[in-house]
Amino acid sequence: MSSSPSKKIRIGICGLGTVGGGTLAILQNNADELSRRLGGELEVTRVASRSLQKGQAEGVAKTGTDPFAVVNDPDIDIVVETMGGFKPAFEVVKQALSSGKHVVTANKALIAERGNELFAVAAQHGVNLNYESSVAGGIPIIKSLREGLAANRIEWLAGIINGTGNFILTEMAARRCQFEEVLKQAQALGYAEADPTFDVEGIDAAHKLTIMASIAFGIPLQFEKTYTEGISRVTPDDISYAKELGYRIKHLGIARRTERGIEMRVHPTLISRKRLLANVNGVGNAIMVHGDAVGSTLYNGPGAGAAATGSAVVADIMDIARALIAGVDHPVMPALGYQSLNSELPVLSIDDIESEYYLRIPVLDRVGVMARISNVLQEHDINIDAVIQKEAVSASVPIVILTHIAVERQLNKALHAIEALADVSGPINRIRVEPLLGEVRN
Amino acid sequence: MSSSPSKKIRIGICGLGTVGGGTLAILQNNADELSRRLGGELEVTRVASRSLQKGQAEGVAKTGTDPFAVVNDPDIDIVVETMGGFKPAFEVVKQALSSGKHVVTANKALIAERGNELFAVAAQHGVNLNYESSVAGGIPIIKSLREGLAANRIEWLAGIINGTGNFILTEMAARRCQFEEVLKQAQALGYAEADPTFDVEGIDAAHKLTIMASIAFGIPLQFEKTYTEGISRVTPDDISYAKELGYRIKHLGIARRTERGIEMRVHPTLISRKRLLANVNGVGNAIMVHGDAVGSTLYNGPGAGAAATGSAVVADIMDIARALIAGVDHPVMPALGYQSLNSELPVLSIDDIESEYYLRIPVLDRVGVMARISNVLQEHDINIDAVIQKEAVSASVPIVILTHIAVERQLNKALHAIEALADVSGPINRIRVEPLLGEVRN
Repeated sequence: MSSSPSKKIRIGICGLGTVGGGTLAILQNNADELSRRLGGELEVTRVASRSLQKGQAEGVAKTGTDPFAVVNDPDIDIVVETMGGFKPAFEVVKQALSSGKHVVTANKALIAERGNELFAVAAQHGVNLNYESSVAGGIPIIKSLREGLAANRIEWLAGIINGTGNFILTEMAARRCQFEEVLKQAQALGYAEADPTFDVEGIDAAHKLTIMASIAFGIPLQFEKTYTEGISRVTPDDISYAKELGYRIKHLGIARRTERGIEMRVHPTLISRKRLLANVNGVGNAIMVHGDAVGSTLYNGPGAGAAATGSAVVADIMDIARALIAGVDHPVMPALGYQSLNSELPVLSIDDIESEYYLRIPVLDRVGVMARISNVLQEHDINIDAVIQKEAVSASVPIVILTHIAVERQLNKALHAIEALADVSGPINRIRVEPLLGEVRN
Repeated sequence: MSSSPSKKIRIGICGLGTVGGGTLAILQNNADELSRRLGGELEVTRVASRSLQKGQAEGVAKTGTDPFAVVNDPDIDIVVETMGGFKPAFEVVKQALSSGKHVVTANKALIAERGNELFAVAAQHGVNLNYESSVAGGIPIIKSLREGLAANRIEWLAGIINGTGNFILTEMAARRCQFEEVLKQAQALGYAEADPTFDVEGIDAAHKLTIMASIAFGIPLQFEKTYTEGISRVTPDDISYAKELGYRIKHLGIARRTERGIEMRVHPTLISRKRLLANVNGVGNAIMVHGDAVGSTLYNGPGAGAAATGSAVVADIMDIARALIAGVDHPVMPALGYQSLNSELPVLSIDDIESEYYLRIPVLDRVGVMARISNVLQEHDINIDAVIQKEAVSASVPIVILTHIAVERQLNKALHAIEALADVSGPINRIRVEPLLGEVRN
């Protein structure tokens, strides 16, 4: 064994924003604890940052603005990419890997959209490309899926993986407010960006779901096939009706293995209030994973923030450093946890998924309207599980229906036919329902 | 790199009870998925079981009753110890390690009480001794603490780590039943043993807590210093009063790093119903871990059962097999996650811990009794946070008090003085209260 108690691992950080800054702080503040775990030393020898603030990289020997200076520094063992975006992050990571350096990235967009290419480069050069921090901040979900649950055939996973969206839905429920009002509050608190599209339209969650699905099922990353629907059409009324039926509404990322293919989808979802996942409030993240052997496990914690995300970046660094100190300089683990990925497994279009549905149908208060709606559903082989029909307080009242499981294409046909009824006074709001049960569906 | 896509890893299993049987079933049923992850094959070539049932080890080439035949089989790479107990498990594991075999064990008592010795043998022979399944069944908590949270100085952890105890407390709360009655039901359902001491008195939980504390803080295993208190003195009244105050009662294992030393303790605990941990019901396990960088994360899942525990055993096997196939035959990770353990950190006696307390004091319904109790607490510098005093329905009524934080030794003195008051009609029931907050206490 080539371990040496005084061995030093040299780290370069590209990007000192929230995550990069958090990473540097942990490496410096927890140096003693990390050394005691490692039997060696982690030293940040070079950082690159667009706009380095005074005192921000104290104790770092070499500082500058050019990330490629970090990549090309021959003394560096591990390059940390915490710049975000694609340009120049893609080239920075690719060049670092190509020059035989291990890379740790927090960049979910980069992994979800360009990961297949980058993992191939890493494998070709016999180095690690770690990305724990790209999903669910400080929660070690990548490691849990890839290693901790490696015994299992993963059947499905479902996660609250965008803190902004969960904060907004939590507040809407607590205060019976409209989406737009809570969004403004979230922006004021710094929980939502000035342009919130990325979070509230589910793109951020789709990046994370794409990554988790690949590790769960051993399939290539296919971000472009992940269905994405935001939370802006959820209303306080929907939240109230859901509550009355025993449900809460969460913005979930769901990946499921079915006999017909893989489902990957991000959308508002009704889940039973009895599930632990339904009780994850505020900016927290949580992922529920169902494996054929273990059953359901759940992972909860902070999904964002400098220190929490930095915790995951440093965990990735520790994995590589522990191996290097033990004399292992090549990857033991394939990037997505499978030595052979299955490119043949189809990803289902949203029309082909199966789900239960919550329907809020605005109708004119006329005799027989419920019967006419029921008939249309029955004609399309869609069964009703529960109905809420309130006394009319105006000419237009909502009928709320929970359906049994149906294929979405079939449901869409039924909804089209219902919306064409003379009694129906506006578009139907449809939200999918997840039982989150142990049973494998197919 | 010496990886070979057709490499076979040979496994021997000692003990085919619940966990061993579950392990064998997963290795056989999920062989394809495991091979796809591994780029190699896991083959169980030999099993030993005291009483092998017909068909139980179908497909295994060599079967017998002697575990040492497994240990001494020169073709075996990994020995799985799922016999339980100390004799012959200790010798089986020790001999396997000494002969250069990697070992995976599910034996929490063995690790908690003899782990220091066995880890030394493993290190001496350059092999792995993995034990994920020894704590919290299928939840990958060992890996999360040792690797996923490796960036952190862990401040505390608190877990529901005995499913039997949690089932009993959940049922007592749901049905307002006495402990003894629910215990009988749990025994009838197979959730509790005929002799339930190990579970309900907290010994099983203390084993698991001892192991987690060592990994969290980098200290040697010190089972004998873990304070253990069972749930048999919790009454339906305590559960009701706790509920009234906004709390639930759970049997927790708690480990905390303080300036004066380490706290390791298992006892019934009041926790706020707003915490996710308070909402883990039935036979489930859950562990909340607080790190200085990540903040609080929570891990929930099944803590027992053949398939769930087998899932963790096979995850340990996969870790070793992935390394072997990548040409790495020596451990990268120290057994407890620290290259250097701190033997100097004192473990505090229960008298020296600090906690908040719930007190149920049976008193005679006389004027001024609450004032006299308050005076005694004040004389001992113990502050009151909340009080419930009901109207008397008989001569003896309970006063329920929540205290602010106090040193237990001081609290004991106060309780002694209160029990000596003429107004107090019986022994005080005292239950510790945990805020489970982010703040580091010292």
